[in-house]
Amino acid sequence: MLYMIGLGLGDAKDITVKGLEVVRRCSRVYLEAYTSVLTVGKEVLSYYIQGQDLGLSSTSQEEFYGRKLILADREEVEQEANNILKDADISDVAFLVVGDPFGATTHSDLILRATKLGIPYRVIHNASIMNAVGCCGLQLYRFGETVSVVFWTDTWRPESFFDKVKTNRQNGMHTLCLLDIKVKEQSLENLIKGRKIYEPPRYMSVNQAAQQLLEIVQNQRIRGEEPAVTEETLCVGLARVGAEDQKIAAGTLQQMCTVDLGGPLHSLIITGGSLHPLEMEMLSLFSVPENSSESQSTDGL
Amino acid sequence: MLYMIGLGLGDAKDITVKGLEVVRRCSRVYLEAYTSVLTVGKEVLSYYIQGQDLGLSSTSQEEFYGRKLILADREEVEQEANNILKDADISDVAFLVVGDPFGATTHSDLILRATKLGIPYRVIHNASIMNAVGCCGLQLYRFGETVSVVFWTDTWRPESFFDKVKTNRQNGMHTLCLLDIKVKEQSLENLIKGRKIYEPPRYMSVNQAAQQLLEIVQNQRIRGEEPAVTEETLCVGLARVGAEDQKIAAGTLQQMCTVDLGGPLHSLIITGGSLHPLEMEMLSLFSVPENSSESQSTDGL
Repeated sequence: MLYMIGLGLGDAKDITVKGLEVVRRCSRVYLEAYTSVLTVGKEVLSYYIQGQDLGLSSTSQEEFYGRKLILADREEVEQEANNILKDADISDVAFLVVGDPFGATTHSDLILRATKLGIPYRVIHNASIMNAVGCCGLQLYRFGETVSVVFWTDTWRPESFFDKVKTNRQNGMHTLCLLDIKVKEQSLENLIKGRKIYEPPRYMSVNQAAQQLLEIVQNQRIRGEEPAVTEETLCVGLARVGAEDQKIAAGTLQQMCTVDLGGPLHSLIITGGSLHPLEMEMLSLFSVPENSSESQSTDGL
Repeated sequence: MLYMIGLGLGDAKDITVKGLEVVRRCSRVYLEAYTSVLTVGKEVLSYYIQGQDLGLSSTSQEEFYGRKLILADREEVEQEANNILKDADISDVAFLVVGDPFGATTHSDLILRATKLGIPYRVIHNASIMNAVGCCGLQLYRFGETVSVVFWTDTWRPESFFDKVKTNRQNGMHTLCLLDIKVKEQSLENLIKGRKIYEPPRYMSVNQAAQQLLEIVQNQRIRGEEPAVTEETLCVGLARVGAEDQKIAAGTLQQMCTVDLGGPLHSLIITGGSLHPLEMEMLSLFSVPENSSESQSTDGL
């Protein structure tokens, strides 16, 4: 059996009791190390491998920590899917995913391969950013299509995702913006020379995302288009959702450029316009103080 | 501290390790008994109260099952919120919610009351139908606004939610339809006589939802409108998502009228039109066999 197991968002203890039991009895346990990971992943590793106390009986701990975690990055999952699935028809293999196995990135491919090989699979769900964003008080069923905001380079500055934000807002839907993560990136030089030396990981902050969004707004104004979003659009910045030190800030897009949310991972919500009174009241718990924004909107919107 | 703890979707073991630890140390533990519950809720109760083995050490079990679960239905949560929050500033109180605390129904109100009383709160997230629907292979970020399909009566047959389905489809987004649940309903007679006798709970099936949807489609045709959905629109029916006996069926809306998905809870997805090849491939794992639909589309669409 192939088990796809969600780890949730906070730390190692966000695995479900069922998920933990399955991990304990699997012959091989892989940890997906590419879609979000790291803040959570390292934590998980330290708990799992260094044997930190999970609050279970010592027998359970011994049983549990006997499992070695095999890190699998995107390359490995794509190239070595057959190794991951080896003997999964006669033994149990676990594939651990931060969040939910069907979160922002689907793991459909591994499931399809398993099915073709006649290997049964089971999914053990968990929270992912896709439903945990509800913690800010915006109603989940009022979210429209989710967009990804990628790091711009000097030569690649995509704006097309903004159409989806526009469609969502025109229909009163909130937009969850998933912010870019760059892990295991090679510099052009190292890539050309075939050196497997990787740059330090980068995680887009709410500040960076808001600045890119405002640049798109400016570009649209220059082109004479009516932007669907302005400096004054109400947004919500979220950091480390589900973790002890989670931080939420509600304010204008302009304020999102300077609000301090601390370390990764960050997400940004662009609200859909008119809010339900209960949504407003919840957001008011997280309001950015007026003076915390250094820059001010200058176009009087 | 007020802890809002998600229980996930399957059974008692879908609580997270962190959630379980918190429940063990809380002075009072409430179980929300109104938004979805029952299939899961009863299970949870049987585990928690009858002391079924959770796979933890016996000491942990004793500690854990020492907590009595207090069932809280919607009335009680609204009317007795102050009782629930009593002393939560000096002791720990847990409020357990099937799925995620910010799933389909938000529990913002309890959080706002706590905040007003100066009681800190923490949320322990879990899977909810809002992210677990990804298990069918449709990409979560391509979902638009979520709609609720309610049981029609002779005199109340709302169609307005269908506009949201239309907007979603026009923009290529999938629509998750949450299907009605009627628990703790009184007959008109019992209501008038003030007798607290409740009707048996009712859960809308995918069949019933599909039939109501087709009726709306017919009504729109009669009014000369172009329906956004037809008998042939690709849909996905899901039952008991996250449970061992979960069932998924992909087929036309017409097929959804007769497909057998077993007991509750059910959900229905109306796809957003063009699908990604990976979505198509995943859905093909769950195709309704051609001959399983007794009725056939008659309008040649």
